[in-house]
Amino acid sequence: MKLTFSPASPFARKVRIAAIELGLIDKIEFVPTTLAPTQANEEYSHINPLKKLPALILDNGDVVIDSYVIVEYLDELAGGGKLIPGSGANRWKVKSDHSLLQGMLDSMLLCRYERMVRPQGLQWQAWSDDHWNRAWTGMARFEHQADVLSRPLDIVQIALTCVLGYADFRFADSGWRKSYPKLNAFHERMLSRPSVKLSLPPPA
Amino acid sequence: MKLTFSPASPFARKVRIAAIELGLIDKIEFVPTTLAPTQANEEYSHINPLKKLPALILDNGDVVIDSYVIVEYLDELAGGGKLIPGSGANRWKVKSDHSLLQGMLDSMLLCRYERMVRPQGLQWQAWSDDHWNRAWTGMARFEHQADVLSRPLDIVQIALTCVLGYADFRFADSGWRKSYPKLNAFHERMLSRPSVKLSLPPPA
Repeated sequence: MKLTFSPASPFARKVRIAAIELGLIDKIEFVPTTLAPTQANEEYSHINPLKKLPALILDNGDVVIDSYVIVEYLDELAGGGKLIPGSGANRWKVKSDHSLLQGMLDSMLLCRYERMVRPQGLQWQAWSDDHWNRAWTGMARFEHQADVLSRPLDIVQIALTCVLGYADFRFADSGWRKSYPKLNAFHERMLSRPSVKLSLPPPA
Repeated sequence: MKLTFSPASPFARKVRIAAIELGLIDKIEFVPTTLAPTQANEEYSHINPLKKLPALILDNGDVVIDSYVIVEYLDELAGGGKLIPGSGANRWKVKSDHSLLQGMLDSMLLCRYERMVRPQGLQWQAWSDDHWNRAWTGMARFEHQADVLSRPLDIVQIALTCVLGYADFRFADSGWRKSYPKLNAFHERMLSRPSVKLSLPPPA
């Protein structure tokens, strides 16, 4: 299998952490890929018309997207029910929490594009404020979920780690550690895992 | 159960079509909800910090997001494996195709926001071109998938219908019917289903 990725992509990081934790990292060839909004990449559009990272290219040529479906696929390869519960009422809570974290990352990227990629003069403060606020309100929700922050590793903890790591990477002044001390303690604990430490984004 | 929705949301439409096709529509109370970028909605942020539609509020108060997870939940309520294959290699193709369609809708909404919601003078043509191009390239992929367009109803066909309906609703001049005649024939066939006809967006 091949995985398209960049060290800066929080979505690719989620898959990398999951692959390490599931013991599948050696089965994946990593393909560094550079993508940016408004810049065409015809070759990559054939793999994923959304021009997004990551994509998992199976040995038969099939392409699995997006990061959540890739983790689901790897989880099943590893026997199933490892990072995403295969059954039970808790499953819907896990999937919904993951959807929330996925949307938080989407909003953080939109915020980043608005402030750093869009030409100055075309930036709309209300748009970036709105999207940052979605991520921030989402963090507040997890700050109060003691169970999520302490249970055995799962997809929600991995995605939350990617959210917080991305906040450090692209929004270093956001002050999330002060506002969310329990998320900070959770993030510190997660950093003791090699999968989390190895996949830290590069210096901004 | 309660579902937050608006008649204009293609994501809510996906869930409405699925609920009708699964025979669950009478178990759901629909809660009309108005959301817009850059406009706060504190009450709704408590339900979904992403400020997105739809959300399914279960009788015990748990909230299921996003539209894909809601359809998965309803599919299981209806016995499982109805709109999303429960097992088999085809499952990953279905999930990946759905992820692609979900991302196409995300891009179409970004394009719409850029052109119609963002103040004039702050619009960035390259951004809306890029996002429209992702949706357009995605449509091209489905134009050539005879199997997807003709097999028994599933989540991919429903999501594709929502993409095409949203193109009609918000991008009436896009010319997708001319460029993609097989998608047009598929869309016409889908319109013979009451679930699809009933859930058409209102006149733009």
